[in-house]
Amino acid sequence: MSISLEKLIQWRREFHQFPETGWSEFWTTSKIADYLSEIGFEILLGKQIINPDFVRGRSQAVVEKGIKRAKEYGANPKWLEKMEGYTGCVAVFDSGKPGKTVALRFDIDCVDVAETKDPNHRANQLGFASLNEGEMHACGHDGHITIGLGVAHWLMEHKDKLTGKVKIVFQPAEEGVRGAAAIAASGIIDDANYFAGSHISFCANSGTVLANPRNFLSTTKVDIRYKGKSAHAGAAPHLGQNALLAAAHAVTQLHGISRHGEGMTRINVGVLKAGSGRNVIPSEAEIKLEVRGENKAINQYMADQVMQIAQGVATSFGVTYETEIMGEAVDMVNDAELVELIKEIAITQPQVHSSDQDYAFNASEDATILGRRVQDNGGKAIYFIIGANRTAEHHQAEFDFDEEQLLTGVNIYTALVERLLA
Amino acid sequence: MSISLEKLIQWRREFHQFPETGWSEFWTTSKIADYLSEIGFEILLGKQIINPDFVRGRSQAVVEKGIKRAKEYGANPKWLEKMEGYTGCVAVFDSGKPGKTVALRFDIDCVDVAETKDPNHRANQLGFASLNEGEMHACGHDGHITIGLGVAHWLMEHKDKLTGKVKIVFQPAEEGVRGAAAIAASGIIDDANYFAGSHISFCANSGTVLANPRNFLSTTKVDIRYKGKSAHAGAAPHLGQNALLAAAHAVTQLHGISRHGEGMTRINVGVLKAGSGRNVIPSEAEIKLEVRGENKAINQYMADQVMQIAQGVATSFGVTYETEIMGEAVDMVNDAELVELIKEIAITQPQVHSSDQDYAFNASEDATILGRRVQDNGGKAIYFIIGANRTAEHHQAEFDFDEEQLLTGVNIYTALVERLLA
Amino acid sequence: MSISLEKLIQWRREFHQFPETGWSEFWTTSKIADYLSEIGFEILLGKQIINPDFVRGRSQAVVEKGIKRAKEYGANPKWLEKMEGYTGCVAVFDSGKPGKTVALRFDIDCVDVAETKDPNHRANQLGFASLNEGEMHACGHDGHITIGLGVAHWLMEHKDKLTGKVKIVFQPAEEGVRGAAAIAASGIIDDANYFAGSHISFCANSGTVLANPRNFLSTTKVDIRYKGKSAHAGAAPHLGQNALLAAAHAVTQLHGISRHGEGMTRINVGVLKAGSGRNVIPSEAEIKLEVRGENKAINQYMADQVMQIAQGVATSFGVTYETEIMGEAVDMVNDAELVELIKEIAITQPQVHSSDQDYAFNASEDATILGRRVQDNGGKAIYFIIGANRTAEHHQAEFDFDEEQLLTGVNIYTALVERLLA
Amino acid sequence: MSISLEKLIQWRREFHQFPETGWSEFWTTSKIADYLSEIGFEILLGKQIINPDFVRGRSQAVVEKGIKRAKEYGANPKWLEKMEGYTGCVAVFDSGKPGKTVALRFDIDCVDVAETKDPNHRANQLGFASLNEGEMHACGHDGHITIGLGVAHWLMEHKDKLTGKVKIVFQPAEEGVRGAAAIAASGIIDDANYFAGSHISFCANSGTVLANPRNFLSTTKVDIRYKGKSAHAGAAPHLGQNALLAAAHAVTQLHGISRHGEGMTRINVGVLKAGSGRNVIPSEAEIKLEVRGENKAINQYMADQVMQIAQGVATSFGVTYETEIMGEAVDMVNDAELVELIKEIAITQPQVHSSDQDYAFNASEDATILGRRVQDNGGKAIYFIIGANRTAEHHQAEFDFDEEQLLTGVNIYTALVERLLA
Repeated sequence: MSISLEKLIQWRREFHQFPETGWSEFWTTSKIADYLSEIGFEILLGKQIINPDFVRGRSQAVVEKGIKRAKEYGANPKWLEKMEGYTGCVAVFDSGKPGKTVALRFDIDCVDVAETKDPNHRANQLGFASLNEGEMHACGHDGHITIGLGVAHWLMEHKDKLTGKVKIVFQPAEEGVRGAAAIAASGIIDDANYFAGSHISFCANSGTVLANPRNFLSTTKVDIRYKGKSAHAGAAPHLGQNALLAAAHAVTQLHGISRHGEGMTRINVGVLKAGSGRNVIPSEAEIKLEVRGENKAINQYMADQVMQIAQGVATSFGVTYETEIMGEAVDMVNDAELVELIKEIAITQPQVHSSDQDYAFNASEDATILGRRVQDNGGKAIYFIIGANRTAEHHQAEFDFDEEQLLTGVNIYTALVERLLA
Repeated sequence: MSISLEKLIQWRREFHQFPETGWSEFWTTSKIADYLSEIGFEILLGKQIINPDFVRGRSQAVVEKGIKRAKEYGANPKWLEKMEGYTGCVAVFDSGKPGKTVALRFDIDCVDVAETKDPNHRANQLGFASLNEGEMHACGHDGHITIGLGVAHWLMEHKDKLTGKVKIVFQPAEEGVRGAAAIAASGIIDDANYFAGSHISFCANSGTVLANPRNFLSTTKVDIRYKGKSAHAGAAPHLGQNALLAAAHAVTQLHGISRHGEGMTRINVGVLKAGSGRNVIPSEAEIKLEVRGENKAINQYMADQVMQIAQGVATSFGVTYETEIMGEAVDMVNDAELVELIKEIAITQPQVHSSDQDYAFNASEDATILGRRVQDNGGKAIYFIIGANRTAEHHQAEFDFDEEQLLTGVNIYTALVERLLA
Repeated sequence: MSISLEKLIQWRREFHQFPETGWSEFWTTSKIADYLSEIGFEILLGKQIINPDFVRGRSQAVVEKGIKRAKEYGANPKWLEKMEGYTGCVAVFDSGKPGKTVALRFDIDCVDVAETKDPNHRANQLGFASLNEGEMHACGHDGHITIGLGVAHWLMEHKDKLTGKVKIVFQPAEEGVRGAAAIAASGIIDDANYFAGSHISFCANSGTVLANPRNFLSTTKVDIRYKGKSAHAGAAPHLGQNALLAAAHAVTQLHGISRHGEGMTRINVGVLKAGSGRNVIPSEAEIKLEVRGENKAINQYMADQVMQIAQGVATSFGVTYETEIMGEAVDMVNDAELVELIKEIAITQPQVHSSDQDYAFNASEDATILGRRVQDNGGKAIYFIIGANRTAEHHQAEFDFDEEQLLTGVNIYTALVERLLA
Repeated sequence: MSISLEKLIQWRREFHQFPETGWSEFWTTSKIADYLSEIGFEILLGKQIINPDFVRGRSQAVVEKGIKRAKEYGANPKWLEKMEGYTGCVAVFDSGKPGKTVALRFDIDCVDVAETKDPNHRANQLGFASLNEGEMHACGHDGHITIGLGVAHWLMEHKDKLTGKVKIVFQPAEEGVRGAAAIAASGIIDDANYFAGSHISFCANSGTVLANPRNFLSTTKVDIRYKGKSAHAGAAPHLGQNALLAAAHAVTQLHGISRHGEGMTRINVGVLKAGSGRNVIPSEAEIKLEVRGENKAINQYMADQVMQIAQGVATSFGVTYETEIMGEAVDMVNDAELVELIKEIAITQPQVHSSDQDYAFNASEDATILGRRVQDNGGKAIYFIIGANRTAEHHQAEFDFDEEQLLTGVNIYTALVERLLA
């Protein structure tokens, strides 16, 4: 017997009310840890699951604000301490019997959107709207957490019938593709034989499951910061080291990175901020950019060129620089065996009528980093989409989704685990 | 009999308490108008003295904030209306007898500096510190206004002995060299035979008058704004028109403007802001720059190149652009006759012991625009410096100056007028 | 009865001995005109077949050298005069009976390669090596001309059995994709219902015909020339207008042309030459570039950006500029009906054992401009490859090909015409 | 008794007939060595006087051509061997008595100008025109050599009356300011207490000696070469390393080197050549540039920036690079003592009527490198101009000068030596 839809909805609405932006999910993580430790899961936190060298796009200010708020909201201090400043957790189910290991991934962060005040919006009607101004679960990750909890409950209920292990990864900071790299690099899923992740709603309505989305875009998000020396632009311009001029030249070089003969590439410098006053040689400049590539190798070519240019320009202008990878995702091809399994499982769900549509994802998801980690270790991976009607597009203030599909999600995952581990 | 030092100090401290940043001097202007209309001056305001086409660096938000605040502080609505949104005034003294016309210029704006909270700072001790947070008369323009008022009073007291006219220009927005061009272009001092302006303190201590500073730098301050079209950097980069990329190329071109064979030039892009999001082709970019030249012609060469580049880059990238001149000053050579007069007059002041030092100004002052306007019309012009000890450098939060030199200032101006018009 | 292989070989060797680079094929054109007018073809020349506005990459020096040499080699003055300086001809076959019109295209220029002196090279052994130093038929166009002549003879022999018309286009300047645009724009094949062109050898060996090569690359070749004003770099740099600096900025902008969301693009500035002396502001600069696109529209997007940048940079630097399109080709999709016909016809040739291989052309051919012209007018077009063993790759000094395949070529074309017009 | 004018003229015309461009003066050097060794001078050659690490702008091809030609013209093989490939010599006069050391410098190269064929040109009339096509003593260095020889003869004649030593430096490659650095760096004049050098004619007519030209421009001439990797621009642009693109970016950065607050600067990229074919990623690029500065330090600032940019751009684009200093000169201020001496001496010459004019040189001369070397070692230096009427400006095909002033030159130098060493 699976968990009830009512329970799933209750969870979903609780998490909806406390949305936390990437790397600040301290309340969310502690709540998940509370729920799953209670029913017997081992909870791994902090550097057990996060390799700090691969943490992307994490601001100290956001972290501190998150910790402070989580404490105010009554997060369990035990978990907060174990987190060591890093959000997310891995809940480990061990059947006690030898067998395969399955890794499931659910992302837990919200987006930086202020939830609509429209009284007709369900969260407003029913009183579960975001309490955190400017933050909102407008991408359905509240649903993802919920499905993860539902699966966890099922696992414990069916422990006797199962073999091997399940590692449920509650991943922080998926928005901006920031969180997966650090979890992958921690090695925590290196023993997994199977990996599965999913998105709810997205482009698919209730009744459709997209078992095999293709064309995940590889991308790397990079910030470049130049630091020079200010000087009076009239009296002593030669004493300055011009960070703004360096940044401008970097932009012109970055956009000139050569096309790649083997596939699509993209480069965009989306933001440039430099200088403080009109008559001062600017000493600081910041560039926010992203590159993309048709596959992981081509994307890496682009990222390598970016790093080379960042350094070369610093040399030219006698300024210091730092680069920070703010996010990354790769391409991934679902394994045929898992695709077939999900197709079969999905179509048997009462509300699902289609599971074999072709679909080009054409966007980035950092679950791919986890999936390819498993594949590179000889395992199999899949990422699929659980259709659900929505009231607005993802990331919009009016977003809501068909909560009944939470149950569809739990059922697909549990059936998958059953097929792999029973 | 001249005005008393006590009265001058009282005025200075009153204006010190109500500092207003450039183009927001509504309270200041109305107060000046109050004082001088009472004693018989004709007060010219608004478009009588401002040519809107040559207004530089005036933000509508600052203007509105200034008007609102002036009303709250009880500024005379009659003047506010006549100002037509433009601050500053010209107070006209007419002796009723034929004669020469003398234009005197006093600048009235403050700087965007928060006054120190140090209890030892005189304004804090005596309770006349700035009431306007973030604004402060830290450049001595409160003293300039005061000297202007003192001279005005002297004129009315000596009306019978004088011939011709005196136009006292209370100029807005000297900081950033923004206000003079619009006054010059209004033609209001086109009948002047003589022009005089000055700065208090600056680099000279009490006892020194610098009668002939040289090497005023010509400069033009320009903002360039590019507007393109945003597009998704992954899906449809070709649909964007990249304002950030345009701005970056503009910067690289601007810094490459050729040196001038006939004298010193400078170019500095001090601020660049562009783009909104990492994955969006940026649709907006703003550049804040300044050029300088050893003289007006060389500076104009630089400014012309800037305009050409602004346009060329817009064409290259298919974006629209606008340029706005945010400030300007020219070089000026004092007329020898007036220099000799000031030297003679100054050295006879009780507190002055030196008036013939050589001094390279090496900075920009937009009084030069007014001075050269008078010179171009066949008149004579001078800009000099009235030494005064100071507690900190100009534009610093701890700035204060030796108030006794206000009287020195008034006395020099009145003696000058006496020599020219009596 | 078709023409004999011996005759074909004789023609091929004659043309091999007199290779002429693009737009200088005066001897070649007059020889073709001689042969075909003799057997009853109407010969169209000069502006009858060339629209001068669309002539690409034609240098006056090369034209003059070509005319002079053709005269020395005894070219018929009548044809030379009618050519009006433009090489190439269209030989018109009219059956006298109503019917379809078929356009066949054979390119006639050589490449700028010096033929090997190796005594084992057949042309050296048998004495038909190039007489024109530095020019050589190393791309097989001598074979193309020959096939065209062979087809022409067959047409006259089979006049009674045929309906409609055949226009045999002997196109100049295919190398650098320069000649087709001007012929297309002349309108000379606007009445064609069918178009066929081909290459001999290329990547295919004797026995293979590639009936349906795909992935023709669209490309535009452009020269940009900037003209400024020189000045002494020490004494008066501001008097210069720096063409070199303009060109350098153009290069940085050109390489930054945005990727296209809908397909592959390329940009390459292959050559840049500017300036005359180290201490002179450079007054002249020349850029040679090419763009490519996955299809005609995407290539046009690239070419449009190039033109925009060429102009914008000229404005920025106050220099004049000119752009010249030096070559162009488009993509083309063969019409299925003709592909099937060629497959069928080819496989029945005695020496051919394969005609249905998939092949990605991945290069540019300006026959596509002619083919798409016919398609745009509602006709059908094909470009195919007639396999032939070769002794070295195309464009190499040691290139030679299996002359027996000349007969294969003639037979395929004549069979095609038979199917279309008999 | 001094040498006769007739002898001087004979020498001058001999050297005029055999002009040799910089670093190819093998015949010239051997001839000087012949003359001066005969009368007792010690002749220093090759690496005794040239530090190869500081040789500027010397092409191996020019050297080889020079050696070959010198041999044909009968140059003494003994000297050729000792030269070790480096032209120029230092002739040492040792009085045998203790005393000061005086270094005198005469430059010996010609310019790359073809001498006029005008029959009225004296060299044509009298048959001493250049025998070396495209090379001509159009800058008067034939006169300089001659004066040096004249002084040498006088020294030997007056050996008994003199103390100390005289080192007569016959410097190669003054054109392009290439030769002095290597001689200075050899240390050969590090023992000199006095240095003198001069130019004949230049801007001054017969009768004028400019004893104290000021404003020598510091300059550094640099070539930058980038080497990348070629690749097919269509198929595999990502495999290329684009030297042309690197060079273009280098140019945009070089022209943006900041102005210097303490004085005039210049930058000019005068020549840029890159790339071989339109459709090939360019693998080679060459930049020829010069910088200037108001003084040695400011010029060095410019040169340092150039080197930094050359390196930075190479890093950005993954190409290798080399920089070569092709020439250099510094500023120099004549020592007052020597200026007074030359003024006194000059005005006593029969043909001279003026020796105290102010004159701004406003050009570069590498004698300054030698002069400052002596000054840096505690000695005194002067560079002066010996007026002489001319038939055309320097470096023009019609240039000739008033040969009578050769004697004026010799007399000034010998009088100077007499004052310093007698």
